[in-house]
Amino acid sequence: MDAATLENYAVGRWTPGASNLVDLPSAVTDEIVARTSSAGLDFKAMANHARTVGGPALRAMTFHDRAWMLKDLAIALNERKEELYALNPHTGATRKDGWIDIDGGVGTLFSFSSKGRKELPDDKVLMDGMAEQISRHGTFMGQHVLTPLQGFALHINAFNFPVWGMLEKLGPTLLAGVPAIVKPATATAFLAEAAFRMLVDTGRLPEGAVQLIVGSTGDLFDQLTGQDVVSFTGSASTAAKLRNHPRVMAESTRFIAEQDSLNASMLGPDATADSPEFDLFVKEIAREMTSKAGQKCTAIRRGIVPGPLLDAVQDALSARLAKVTVGDPRLEEVRMGALVSRSQRDDVRAKVLDISREAQIVFGDPDNVEVVGVDAQNGAFFSPILMRCDAPWSARAVHDVEAFGPVATLMPYDGLDDAIKLCNRGQGSLVMSLFTHDPHATRDVVLGSGAFHGRIAVIDRDSAKESTGHGSPLPVLIHGGPGRAGGGEELGGERGLAFYQQRVAVQGFQGTVQASFGAPAKE
Amino acid sequence: MDAATLENYAVGRWTPGASNLVDLPSAVTDEIVARTSSAGLDFKAMANHARTVGGPALRAMTFHDRAWMLKDLAIALNERKEELYALNPHTGATRKDGWIDIDGGVGTLFSFSSKGRKELPDDKVLMDGMAEQISRHGTFMGQHVLTPLQGFALHINAFNFPVWGMLEKLGPTLLAGVPAIVKPATATAFLAEAAFRMLVDTGRLPEGAVQLIVGSTGDLFDQLTGQDVVSFTGSASTAAKLRNHPRVMAESTRFIAEQDSLNASMLGPDATADSPEFDLFVKEIAREMTSKAGQKCTAIRRGIVPGPLLDAVQDALSARLAKVTVGDPRLEEVRMGALVSRSQRDDVRAKVLDISREAQIVFGDPDNVEVVGVDAQNGAFFSPILMRCDAPWSARAVHDVEAFGPVATLMPYDGLDDAIKLCNRGQGSLVMSLFTHDPHATRDVVLGSGAFHGRIAVIDRDSAKESTGHGSPLPVLIHGGPGRAGGGEELGGERGLAFYQQRVAVQGFQGTVQASFGAPAKE
Repeated sequence: MDAATLENYAVGRWTPGASNLVDLPSAVTDEIVARTSSAGLDFKAMANHARTVGGPALRAMTFHDRAWMLKDLAIALNERKEELYALNPHTGATRKDGWIDIDGGVGTLFSFSSKGRKELPDDKVLMDGMAEQISRHGTFMGQHVLTPLQGFALHINAFNFPVWGMLEKLGPTLLAGVPAIVKPATATAFLAEAAFRMLVDTGRLPEGAVQLIVGSTGDLFDQLTGQDVVSFTGSASTAAKLRNHPRVMAESTRFIAEQDSLNASMLGPDATADSPEFDLFVKEIAREMTSKAGQKCTAIRRGIVPGPLLDAVQDALSARLAKVTVGDPRLEEVRMGALVSRSQRDDVRAKVLDISREAQIVFGDPDNVEVVGVDAQNGAFFSPILMRCDAPWSARAVHDVEAFGPVATLMPYDGLDDAIKLCNRGQGSLVMSLFTHDPHATRDVVLGSGAFHGRIAVIDRDSAKESTGHGSPLPVLIHGGPGRAGGGEELGGERGLAFYQQRVAVQGFQGTVQASFGAPAKE
Repeated sequence: MDAATLENYAVGRWTPGASNLVDLPSAVTDEIVARTSSAGLDFKAMANHARTVGGPALRAMTFHDRAWMLKDLAIALNERKEELYALNPHTGATRKDGWIDIDGGVGTLFSFSSKGRKELPDDKVLMDGMAEQISRHGTFMGQHVLTPLQGFALHINAFNFPVWGMLEKLGPTLLAGVPAIVKPATATAFLAEAAFRMLVDTGRLPEGAVQLIVGSTGDLFDQLTGQDVVSFTGSASTAAKLRNHPRVMAESTRFIAEQDSLNASMLGPDATADSPEFDLFVKEIAREMTSKAGQKCTAIRRGIVPGPLLDAVQDALSARLAKVTVGDPRLEEVRMGALVSRSQRDDVRAKVLDISREAQIVFGDPDNVEVVGVDAQNGAFFSPILMRCDAPWSARAVHDVEAFGPVATLMPYDGLDDAIKLCNRGQGSLVMSLFTHDPHATRDVVLGSGAFHGRIAVIDRDSAKESTGHGSPLPVLIHGGPGRAGGGEELGGERGLAFYQQRVAVQGFQGTVQASFGAPAKE
């Protein structure tokens, strides 16, 4: 393919970086897919454009107007998605991996469009809860309402989901009525840029509603105010650096991060080697390890297993992993493609070595992998690696080091309390899953572990067929987790709009408040 | 009075600071009211005590259990409140000022108790919204639930409301099921400590549920994890320093701040010099300037007036302020007491000088004030100061400098759009008020200014009699504001519990989720 020069979309114009172009190699073949830079952009002008043009245009629309707009964006992406699937293998991803990213992203837009039309009013202001009676005779009342922030949203996205990662933030932002400036991760910016271009091509977005930076954000952080927000997905170290920016501090700029996460999956105490939940557990870990080559923030990193079942789980899981064909993601027979880059592969390998000081590698070789259809030397290929840690309470790295690839560690527990504590030892994560057929165990785990996780997926024989699985964030459920996971919260239907809105308590005469908000009318 | 040595309440024991006692002078007479220090405390042990003793005890209670506990605490404070009123004048406050702090604080506890019993389940886990259908045949569903964080809440309170400030944070925290470590501001710690002691004396609080630090927090910040929260009320500079703590960053510890705020009050474009709203506006500014000697985070700092009415407002307001008797807050005829300390008075004076470079002082003298009943030299007395800024768009300090005393500035506007922009020029505040009889103006102001304020009080002839006023946060409405105000959110009934809870999306088989949470049962 030709090595295209990616373009920024700034102040309503497509423009390549003026200098310092960076080569973006294919994760599979190492050929240069694109070149990219944001040098020469006027970031202050971009901020002003969002604030003075994009924001007012979006705020002039009702929730329904914006929801219909999202639907048109989703339809346009859906019609042109094969162009995105053509680029997808260069990120290392199979078509099935791409489905999570591309169709998953489009589905998220559709979901927010649907929620917007069905659950939000055809108005510009959103009621929050019921009126509060704050006076004895009812002449003075309170009503919480939500109004869009009057700045812009800066979205800093991760490399692993260039399309979904962009759309899962854009959907709630645009529906809330706030313009966005999107900064995709450099490694897969070619795919994000292509999807972004399709959005602009629809002509459905008001001027200034979205802008794109395919490179460094320059001095954009210096433009932030208390009306702007930053939504960051990436590493904890980068998040800490950005959160610390003097402007973010001085202006109380809202900042959410979705960062590292050592997600756990627990096989319930009621499971036996021949219970359906045992098989479901093994299958899910194998799937989570190999889907997207394990490059999912939500992937299972720690398998928490009743002590007596540990050997059986290890054997069954190893047998499954042995069937995984690694190689050129364009081939139908390939189950797992490449990591996003060779530097990322080296990082995963180093982390595996770190963890393996406390855990035994029981499947896979971090230095060798058999690859089909392409030269292993050119691509960022890596074997699935299963480890086993028999003494998890004296280990550190298994709970603290996230190897962002096809890597997981099994560990035994002794009783439900111990299992809950092991889950929580991850110090905050995006998701945990529980394979149990016992509702009491479910309740105990939610009460005991709920504070440490943004999502708990309970999977059993009754739900498995329709289950969306451990690793899939859904647009109608929140995505994000406390502590190590960054403390952020995204999606969750209407909840996902809160970050882009200000809640304000309006107090006044009952008639005045009702006349102002009680009968939402399109203006 | 005797200069008592205040005591910390740490790991279930009352203990004075071991050294470095600080003298706390009366704001009125300069006599030493108390001495205080936290030297010698084992802050790590306090954190562990909260986490391992207080948290589990509170989490073992249902919302109703905790709500009944709050009611008993409120009743006990109410019965002993005269002991608090006896200390209150030494903070500079009149009995009426004390009512906001002491009765206001007790009322907040009663309100959270009532909300807890009426709106929350008799259970340990709280449903958040309706179940989400996430599968075609309904065998896999999603339900958001809220569970208490498993760490502790560190409350860092401001000097101006030693009782209310403590209780408005404790109410939601304890109702949520999270233990608290309270650090009152030093200047008025004698009043906070007395109220805290009454809470402990009830015997109703489980061991470890509350602890008190009457001095520096030592190395307590080094103990913070992602399960802990910090709720800070005070200056923007201190907030920024604490937010930046490496531990807060590394652990994504939740941090909310309620800091500076240049709250605006707008006289609507429909007002005339003889409309009821004109009089209500003037009365409210006078009240806000002098109540608590203007030491309220919510006080009106900027009066935004239709240009043609500026002279009339200035005259009417000056006439009102001229009637304000300043002096010993223990005297019935005194309408306004002292600032909290002489250093605070010097700070207010310096800020007035700063603002007066762009605005004209039209009432009061920052260097002189007539005082009744006590020697002006010994107390932190300060005159109400009204300023007027005829060119607000070329001024800076009137919008950016908060003189935390009986100080406000009037400024003219030209049309509603201009008025809205002037309100927003405060760059985020806790509250604004609007005096109008026009519902359209109300809607326009909420849409135009809502993003910059946590609360908008609309007051007119119909609501005035029952209005709770510009400056009163209510337990059922949120308190906090974006940008300069710190970006925090407290109170608001059930909303106030969110900061102390983790929202988790539980996915599973319909029957399992219903069996686990559908029928809340006391265990």
